[in-house]
Amino acid sequence: MISLIPVEGIGEIRPGDELAAIIAERVELAAGDVVVVTQKVVSKAEGRLVAVDADDPRGHRQVVLDESVRVLRRRGDLVLSETRHGFICANAGVDLSNVERGWAALLPLDSDRSARRIRDGLRARTGLSVGVVVSDTFGRTWRRGVTDVAIGCAGVAAVVDLRGTSDALGRELAVTEVCVADEIAAAAELVMGKARAVPVAVVRGVDESWLREASVHDEVVRHPSEDLFR
Amino acid sequence: MISLIPVEGIGEIRPGDELAAIIAERVELAAGDVVVVTQKVVSKAEGRLVAVDADDPRGHRQVVLDESVRVLRRRGDLVLSETRHGFICANAGVDLSNVERGWAALLPLDSDRSARRIRDGLRARTGLSVGVVVSDTFGRTWRRGVTDVAIGCAGVAAVVDLRGTSDALGRELAVTEVCVADEIAAAAELVMGKARAVPVAVVRGVDESWLREASVHDEVVRHPSEDLFR
Repeated sequence: MISLIPVEGIGEIRPGDELAAIIAERVELAAGDVVVVTQKVVSKAEGRLVAVDADDPRGHRQVVLDESVRVLRRRGDLVLSETRHGFICANAGVDLSNVERGWAALLPLDSDRSARRIRDGLRARTGLSVGVVVSDTFGRTWRRGVTDVAIGCAGVAAVVDLRGTSDALGRELAVTEVCVADEIAAAAELVMGKARAVPVAVVRGVDESWLREASVHDEVVRHPSEDLFR
Repeated sequence: MISLIPVEGIGEIRPGDELAAIIAERVELAAGDVVVVTQKVVSKAEGRLVAVDADDPRGHRQVVLDESVRVLRRRGDLVLSETRHGFICANAGVDLSNVERGWAALLPLDSDRSARRIRDGLRARTGLSVGVVVSDTFGRTWRRGVTDVAIGCAGVAAVVDLRGTSDALGRELAVTEVCVADEIAAAAELVMGKARAVPVAVVRGVDESWLREASVHDEVVRHPSEDLFR
């Protein structure tokens, strides 16, 4: 069994806040837990905020273009672009919601490093080995509605390779690589809720074999050479 | 808190088996639970199996084309196509793994109806109102690794509309529609495991407001007019 536990009472995060300390104060962690932290609070803690004129949509659009290494599509207000990390998402991950008026939150510069920093901070404070996933909310090409995915991870696998294992009937599996980090991020979102200001959740009980060094950037970002739609 | 509970001991499913009866025998359900059932056992129970020559890849490829209303891309053995349901996925959802040699499993003809049938069967046997999600494993355009998504649902929302609600700072939310059915499917996969033959899981503790009539087809399938990549 796996438990999805919202971490309540995190409060407003400001640049310079140490997320590991704040999380460790508000939840009793156990070894092997995976702590999911939304990008928004990671970006705030890291000071990844820029001033935008809230009444001028062009200001927001320029920030989006500055954060994009490549624009794939535009439609109306939507810009679908590739970020420096290789993520392809709406508005380069630049977000105005849950940010004070006049400010926009940018993605962390290196979201795997952000996850490692929180993981290391939690280990220093609790003595426990835990995994950390930094999550963000992405749309999907052919499906309506957004879901949370992993943009960074530490101490927990991003993609689990089942190659060489057999299915229940002894056939070698055709589908082999499962992005457990994205599934963990999606699961955590179920107890966060966009409007409830719960930016952290604990996923307790994941397969022990998933607890290892890992990177969303190395394991999840699809190389353009494998890409059928870029 | 949400609990993800694997349902063990389901065993091999054969055409004509009544999934609701098999599930109700193996897990103590509670009102408001969401039961996630993988497409593979739904297709088997519904007899959505076709014979293929296991030594002739052309046979498999022809089944994939028969199940496709439109091919978007091909690369090597991979066919990315649109199914009759409007899903865009690899090999039109036709699957050889966890199926007896010489057979392929096709997607259910109407996967929302499949979910309703299981939901109705569970209600008849237990007297409880539960939600049902039929899940399948899809790849993603720009991210490596597969994740489970919802291909059918009943009694639980596919997409939750947060339009008009406010974020924690009182701003109207920019991102408004969350595909909770996909997040529920992804969460359930964490306790299923591709090689462990656990085709059913219970997601206990979801937001009560999500328990309503719903349809993946109506809520999740993106209309071609909204599509930037077809």
